[in-house]
Amino acid sequence: MVRSLFWEDGVLVVLDQTRLPHRVKWLRLRRWHQVVEAIRALRVRGAPALGAAGAYAVALAAYELAEGAQHFWERLREAAEVIRSARPTAVNLACGTDRALRAAQGASEPKQAAHRALEEAHRIVEEDERACRALAEAGARELVDGERVLTLCNTGALATLGIGTALGILRAAWERGKRIHVYACETRPLLQGARLTAWELQQLGIPFQLVVDGAAGWLMARGMVDRVVVGADRVAANGDVANKIGTYTLAVLCHHHRIPFWVAAPLSSVDLATPHGQAVRVEERSPEEITRVAGRPVAPDGAPALNYAFDVTPAELISALITDAGILRPPLGPALRAAVEGARV
Amino acid sequence: MVRSLFWEDGVLVVLDQTRLPHRVKWLRLRRWHQVVEAIRALRVRGAPALGAAGAYAVALAAYELAEGAQHFWERLREAAEVIRSARPTAVNLACGTDRALRAAQGASEPKQAAHRALEEAHRIVEEDERACRALAEAGARELVDGERVLTLCNTGALATLGIGTALGILRAAWERGKRIHVYACETRPLLQGARLTAWELQQLGIPFQLVVDGAAGWLMARGMVDRVVVGADRVAANGDVANKIGTYTLAVLCHHHRIPFWVAAPLSSVDLATPHGQAVRVEERSPEEITRVAGRPVAPDGAPALNYAFDVTPAELISALITDAGILRPPLGPALRAAVEGARV
Repeated sequence: MVRSLFWEDGVLVVLDQTRLPHRVKWLRLRRWHQVVEAIRALRVRGAPALGAAGAYAVALAAYELAEGAQHFWERLREAAEVIRSARPTAVNLACGTDRALRAAQGASEPKQAAHRALEEAHRIVEEDERACRALAEAGARELVDGERVLTLCNTGALATLGIGTALGILRAAWERGKRIHVYACETRPLLQGARLTAWELQQLGIPFQLVVDGAAGWLMARGMVDRVVVGADRVAANGDVANKIGTYTLAVLCHHHRIPFWVAAPLSSVDLATPHGQAVRVEERSPEEITRVAGRPVAPDGAPALNYAFDVTPAELISALITDAGILRPPLGPALRAAVEGARV
Repeated sequence: MVRSLFWEDGVLVVLDQTRLPHRVKWLRLRRWHQVVEAIRALRVRGAPALGAAGAYAVALAAYELAEGAQHFWERLREAAEVIRSARPTAVNLACGTDRALRAAQGASEPKQAAHRALEEAHRIVEEDERACRALAEAGARELVDGERVLTLCNTGALATLGIGTALGILRAAWERGKRIHVYACETRPLLQGARLTAWELQQLGIPFQLVVDGAAGWLMARGMVDRVVVGADRVAANGDVANKIGTYTLAVLCHHHRIPFWVAAPLSSVDLATPHGQAVRVEERSPEEITRVAGRPVAPDGAPALNYAFDVTPAELISALITDAGILRPPLGPALRAAVEGARV
């Protein structure tokens, strides 16, 4: 079974997604700084997986700092600050980090703090596994036999601690015997669709075809797409969604062609403290991700590039939000508030 | 100066665009089969450049076949048939090939036929040079100082025999002193934007940034795009336009954001015999163009891919067609008919 990360004997074991699909390389991370590097370099990625990675990094930091003992609490807070800001867009990273830190701060001494942070990280993993399953089943029930579904980026087991979000829905539908066909957008610049989603779909035996991101409109115009399902890095309180660059373009195309546009996200990716999409900090990454592919230059030396890693899709363009609390329909703002409050009870 | 191809001492000299931007390699093609290979492999590309390449290939075929003399006319017709169908979408390839063949057929013996085909090819080059200049000036006059223009694929000197079509407009505007900023979509799968357009823009000193194709919508949502200008591989009689995959997506995005969407094409790319876009044969190319980048695999072995090289944009989504007969505005069907008939006079 594909897993993005797991804990084993004091080590965070992470599948290095930058090496996929050609090499399955497991990294054994013993120090919190290594986890931060793995997050920044996208060795581990996907909003839900980042939540657990952040929490495990706090646990590793606590074990490490407990050895020295000097200024333990202050230095743990500092480490957590570095971890939570390793990447800005996914709310899960900040949330997971903060949860582990709070759990640690409830302890009376460093070793106990480390144990508690670790337990909290394990809890995040279990919660996400359950959330993925719940949202996948909710979405799968609505998918129609024979549907052709277009998706972007990777939102499967590699992006989460369970069966995935958008890709989890497709998997659950397939496992229920619904015949589906997937168009996987390759997802430039980092090709998560080509490298990761294609790899997961192959292993699951689900029929699919890779397409370039620019082909989505043409497939819709030809009547080849019945639904678009994507994931989310952060869902704002009003239902606006920050997700991989290209998501907004797909939403506009769906609107134009009257095709349902679904966003699949666990409630852990909902951030009621972010009122709307304009308040989300969209990560801008290195131009080299565009000017080089697979290590090779594809543009002239010195060619400038603008590399927004995410975009924001306004709630009005979203047909439904598929969550572990069920399918939320517009208006998404009130539906989200009710779902989050219901989950707290 | 950048040139896509030229004739020199009985040889068709072609800039191998598959090697750009890292290597400037000129191919010296002496046999018509080599030209067909160069067209199929996209060493020479761009609708207008393909028109001349097809005509020169007929001339090379005539010189070659004149040596043998047996069944000259029959074999020349067969060669022309192979040349014209080397790629299906751009009308210019078929037109240029047919023009050279007709010119040859007006001769009384093989050597003379070859000379006439060659003269016709030279004429196509001169005509395209003039057409590019005329349409570029027409478009440049309307561009506003300070505009930020998004474009797709390569439509510059490399795609034509002159200064280009869409990129020619930007160049002419820049030469008139209008400060413009270009967003060049990288244009997967073959990265003509990253490899070719970035290279031309760099040489011209026009400010630009490369972006991934999926970013176009987000740039528009942020108010960063004032106009989209693209080229065309074939313009149907009703104004529908076949062009690089991704064009249709940009047109829908422009419609949604009320941004002008311009198509730049010489009248030689207009095909009144194609009534509308659905009648255009859209080339489907090898899945490997998607699953490999710069020679390296980017998807798992055996991952299937669907590779439409072009799409069709309906006339309703086009704000204006910039031609060598001036700027045509909707309804494009009657405007095109009038322009083509006017040019025949």
